[in-house]
Amino acid sequence: MGNGHWIQRVCVVGFAVLLCAAGASAQEQPRLNLMPWPANLQTGSGSLRIDSSFSVALTGHTEARLDRAAQRFLRQLSRQTAIPLSGRASAKPTLSVHTDQASKEVQELGEDESYALSITADGAQIEAPTPLGAMHGLQTFLQLVEVSPDGFAAPAVTIQDKPRFPWRGLMIDVARHFIPLDVLKRNLDGMEAVKMNVFHWHLSENQGFRVESKKFPKLQTMGSDGLYYTQDEIRDLIAYAHDRGIRVVPEFDMPGHSTAWFVGHPELASGPGPYEIERKWGVFDPAMDPTNEKTYKFLDEFVGEMTKLFPDHYFHIGGDEVNGKQWDANPKIQEFKKSHNLATNEALQAYFSERIQKIVTKHGKAVVGWDEVFIPGVPKDIVIQSWRGQESLARAAALGYHGILSNGYYLDLGWSAARHYVGDPMSGPAASLTPEQQQLILGGESCMWAEYVNAENIDSRIWPRNVAIAERLWSPQNVTDVASMYARLHAVSTQLEWLGLTHRTYYPQMLRRIAGPGANPEQLTALRTLADAVEPVKDYTRGATAPAEATSATPLNRVVDAVPLESDVARRFAEQVDRLASSSCRDAAAAAQLRAQLSAWRDNDARLQPLAQRSFLVKEVAATSQDLSAVAAVGLAALDFAAKGGAAPDDWKAQQLTVIEQVQKPKAQLLLMPAPAIQKLVEAVAAGGSCAAPK
Amino acid sequence: MGNGHWIQRVCVVGFAVLLCAAGASAQEQPRLNLMPWPANLQTGSGSLRIDSSFSVALTGHTEARLDRAAQRFLRQLSRQTAIPLSGRASAKPTLSVHTDQASKEVQELGEDESYALSITADGAQIEAPTPLGAMHGLQTFLQLVEVSPDGFAAPAVTIQDKPRFPWRGLMIDVARHFIPLDVLKRNLDGMEAVKMNVFHWHLSENQGFRVESKKFPKLQTMGSDGLYYTQDEIRDLIAYAHDRGIRVVPEFDMPGHSTAWFVGHPELASGPGPYEIERKWGVFDPAMDPTNEKTYKFLDEFVGEMTKLFPDHYFHIGGDEVNGKQWDANPKIQEFKKSHNLATNEALQAYFSERIQKIVTKHGKAVVGWDEVFIPGVPKDIVIQSWRGQESLARAAALGYHGILSNGYYLDLGWSAARHYVGDPMSGPAASLTPEQQQLILGGESCMWAEYVNAENIDSRIWPRNVAIAERLWSPQNVTDVASMYARLHAVSTQLEWLGLTHRTYYPQMLRRIAGPGANPEQLTALRTLADAVEPVKDYTRGATAPAEATSATPLNRVVDAVPLESDVARRFAEQVDRLASSSCRDAAAAAQLRAQLSAWRDNDARLQPLAQRSFLVKEVAATSQDLSAVAAVGLAALDFAAKGGAAPDDWKAQQLTVIEQVQKPKAQLLLMPAPAIQKLVEAVAAGGSCAAPK
Repeated sequence: MGNGHWIQRVCVVGFAVLLCAAGASAQEQPRLNLMPWPANLQTGSGSLRIDSSFSVALTGHTEARLDRAAQRFLRQLSRQTAIPLSGRASAKPTLSVHTDQASKEVQELGEDESYALSITADGAQIEAPTPLGAMHGLQTFLQLVEVSPDGFAAPAVTIQDKPRFPWRGLMIDVARHFIPLDVLKRNLDGMEAVKMNVFHWHLSENQGFRVESKKFPKLQTMGSDGLYYTQDEIRDLIAYAHDRGIRVVPEFDMPGHSTAWFVGHPELASGPGPYEIERKWGVFDPAMDPTNEKTYKFLDEFVGEMTKLFPDHYFHIGGDEVNGKQWDANPKIQEFKKSHNLATNEALQAYFSERIQKIVTKHGKAVVGWDEVFIPGVPKDIVIQSWRGQESLARAAALGYHGILSNGYYLDLGWSAARHYVGDPMSGPAASLTPEQQQLILGGESCMWAEYVNAENIDSRIWPRNVAIAERLWSPQNVTDVASMYARLHAVSTQLEWLGLTHRTYYPQMLRRIAGPGANPEQLTALRTLADAVEPVKDYTRGATAPAEATSATPLNRVVDAVPLESDVARRFAEQVDRLASSSCRDAAAAAQLRAQLSAWRDNDARLQPLAQRSFLVKEVAATSQDLSAVAAVGLAALDFAAKGGAAPDDWKAQQLTVIEQVQKPKAQLLLMPAPAIQKLVEAVAAGGSCAAPK
Repeated sequence: MGNGHWIQRVCVVGFAVLLCAAGASAQEQPRLNLMPWPANLQTGSGSLRIDSSFSVALTGHTEARLDRAAQRFLRQLSRQTAIPLSGRASAKPTLSVHTDQASKEVQELGEDESYALSITADGAQIEAPTPLGAMHGLQTFLQLVEVSPDGFAAPAVTIQDKPRFPWRGLMIDVARHFIPLDVLKRNLDGMEAVKMNVFHWHLSENQGFRVESKKFPKLQTMGSDGLYYTQDEIRDLIAYAHDRGIRVVPEFDMPGHSTAWFVGHPELASGPGPYEIERKWGVFDPAMDPTNEKTYKFLDEFVGEMTKLFPDHYFHIGGDEVNGKQWDANPKIQEFKKSHNLATNEALQAYFSERIQKIVTKHGKAVVGWDEVFIPGVPKDIVIQSWRGQESLARAAALGYHGILSNGYYLDLGWSAARHYVGDPMSGPAASLTPEQQQLILGGESCMWAEYVNAENIDSRIWPRNVAIAERLWSPQNVTDVASMYARLHAVSTQLEWLGLTHRTYYPQMLRRIAGPGANPEQLTALRTLADAVEPVKDYTRGATAPAEATSATPLNRVVDAVPLESDVARRFAEQVDRLASSSCRDAAAAAQLRAQLSAWRDNDARLQPLAQRSFLVKEVAATSQDLSAVAAVGLAALDFAAKGGAAPDDWKAQQLTVIEQVQKPKAQLLLMPAPAIQKLVEAVAAGGSCAAPK
């Protein structure tokens, strides 16, 4: 750290706030809504009041980026509080930010991102070796600002913080659905807020080629439906990211996932053209011809152009999911395999990978690729991005290769934040690596694949769950308390709203579209009640159960597109069921809350049905609505048994479990999330007077 | 109309939908969510399906503006439905738009804005004499698109439409609080959607001078805190408005309301300087010196510059609320009055008005001014904007002067949409004018004065209530049904959301700020329940009861800043009370709904109190929350009497009315909106078994 010494810690606080201030009781102490949780934190007493005189001063190393960061900070602080802040420096600034020295002109992997933040009732200081740390400190400050009985304030606190991993990324697929630049920018704002530092830009796919190439303009003019980023826009986005301490790693997926390239350049493909932009989802046959020297000549020129456009040291070449069918069907390629002793298509892909890696290296960059590009023996400066799992990551590290983890961090699979949260790059096989080998594991990236997202709902598919991954990659490994995570996630989600992210606002708006503008408030409430209780089917079930005619032009306007990927209502309901069960069904408050919720669900279907008759989008979920009523009735019956005491009869239990099994079958690609908790309730009351959940 | 003949009408529909299609029952027929309601409408049978093949073709007169309007239409249609629309013209376009001829290059008052729209199951046509009508027709089409049991569709309909008044404006005060350009643009989008055609831009005030003057740059550099529009930005906004068929009328308020001018140019003032930007609200003393020839020289140059910047024929000179104190205190001015036989300050202002009108006329423009500029004898091309009332409008018209009505349309006064809706430029004294005199009444303007609005909440202070005024100014005079208005307003409000207006999304976001990011969902719901039941105090009460230290820098983050100006919940509650009372307290469904609502209100305070202890912004409404619980308990007791039958005792009634009287006193500048309906309920049950509301 730049300032060289730390104030001595009175107490160290992990993921939950311990009490340091004398006289403060647990009830009085506000929870700190920091996420990712800092490496070291101690609370003090008192708080720093935020009012219109708030000002920031920058000392030490200065640069325009820091000025902009301070302006952005003030704007954001003003949004959070609605206090107009001119930020004009007064004699004594409220917050002083000292930066020791510049960071690298092009942000590099592993630069010092540490910072120290100290807040007292009199003022606040951030000290950081580089602008990267200074900017992180500003974000931490923003998260600390809370409403208090006397006004807005930031609690007294001393923080020394640095990241656990140097590579903390978010990948966005802008190819399957095009994502406009302004949407990407607000997601970069979100990344900055949670200290992620790599934007991995998945730019080409079967369904679209999204970058302007001046050397090969047919790539975008024929491969994108006109939906691509100009080079000026790309430079603009890179500058925007750099301002926020975020590297931009471009990905051009090769040799598979490349149909869109072949629309303008069929000569690159392994099968005969002509090609059209792919409109369906899945893994497709077209792949580049790895046996044609013209392919490498083209890629050399193309990579030369793109490595100039994208300044980051890393260049992602994809490499995933080549099914080999075009290679098998092409006699020339079969001939080449024989003559080059390439026994398998994997070996042929390894040959391609080696050639393309040499091209990337020649242009001064290092390669990132998905699991498939890793063949022992490739040059050591490659970074393996593991979508397959921690085993492959650990295996590569054991052989001396860098890796980042994405398995477990696929945001499109619809997992809960808690499920993402347990995934750790250092867990599983990686835990057994030597410390030197562990150093090779650089971090991870969450991935937003875009089959079912567009500009309207993408924020909600990334946020807030992505913050749990951001914390995993930044905070100490022992920060794992799920209840604390959810409490803080809820708060940080509000902070993300002030950045302009639409992960909350999109939802009532999409529901109003589904209901139609003529729906009355009661009907809208009924639709919301149902929608709040469901989640889209998980993993790849949606694609697997999609109608045959689904394409990239299919409107994303269904309930499955509108509902959040994680139901807060169902999670809280399950918590109440656990409370009731763990009290041997004696917790009257929990029972009353459950009864109120179950009654609302049971009665909801009658309110929703008029809408179902008017809107095809509501009609699609009419059966799910009936299921919710039915399963709620089961839960209410269980509560009745619990109220009476004594075990529910076995045949009753069997009947209820049949109902629950029925409603758990996905309908309209939706899962009825309260069902498992209601099953628990049934099993608890069937277990008798003790009402203990069997588990 | 361009196409010269109308399809013969089967039936004519006024403000409520009559049924024309054979076999359709009242229940089956969807309500049409058109607003403003068209001059003539007949419904047909069937509907036009909206799918991804939807296309638009433009015929007849073409211009780039129409192409952009068509693109904007497609984008908007795509937002409303989430159907990706390329809009590529197919052999047979879904919607064809025929425009006869160009409109004026600079849009003029009174141009033909009529259009005809016909929709059948096979396609749709718009025919219009000018692009202005064509664009109106596109907006009508968008409002007709509804979700149906089979997909998105527009019902078969034939419309011939034209405005009742040629001047349908919205004034936004950007001086008291600066309103950024993008916020203005989305409000222009809203104006286009509801066919308003004049944006009156109130650009200068005591609190700020918001336009870049290249001739007198001290006006903006010293008079705006850096918050002003550059001339490029102004040209951009004017082009944006022109694209939407909207004229832009600038207002520079003179000779009063002008402190901000004097910061850089104290020589214009009637009193000695120096001056600072005014930070308080109210009517202030500084006024231009009408006796100094240098004032007119300055204004001649300034008006010369501004009339070049703003192309509209009309130029607003303000003229309101000069208190005359600076004039009285200036011996030179007293001397001037004597020497020029100007007996009163009104006469002195008339002198100033005449001079400034001559300047404006010299630069080729016509003057608009508030009531005060009207002195019989001024040139006839002046337009009087009446803030004082319909009398002054009618008086001016009787003397041959043009006028527009703003009295009754002040959006900042917090009136209900229904109250704005009854205001009609032709009612009151205007109704007795001759037809020729009535022709002089050009229309009206809603006004958004900006003491208590900023970029965050201004949309909610304008919309959706402004749509009621837009309808008043466009639709036939007999379109007055309030229930129909509210039903359509609710639907059009959703449509406005798709334009990017934030009149709904801002609200939960501001409530989350008030509660703090750490508030749990139950607490947030409690805050919302309270907030939904209150409205800000009306008229000028807020200013009159503001603390002495309030300034333009006072944060607008209180509950009074967050809640909508009209409580839908309270309005619906009052409707239920009316239902119950008119059924002699026998309507069980109404009673049950009232009981559920009252119970929720009664129990709400207990849930809210923990937040009130943590947030100063919630603490401010703690007493209001207690009032809501108390008055809800009164309502529940009244329902109990109603259930039992028989009259409630007089002493009980007296006690309850005392409670109701107490809670009706504003607290935290908020009104408890359900109180009057609860009073009605109490009086109804006290009136005995018949339970008729006394009225």
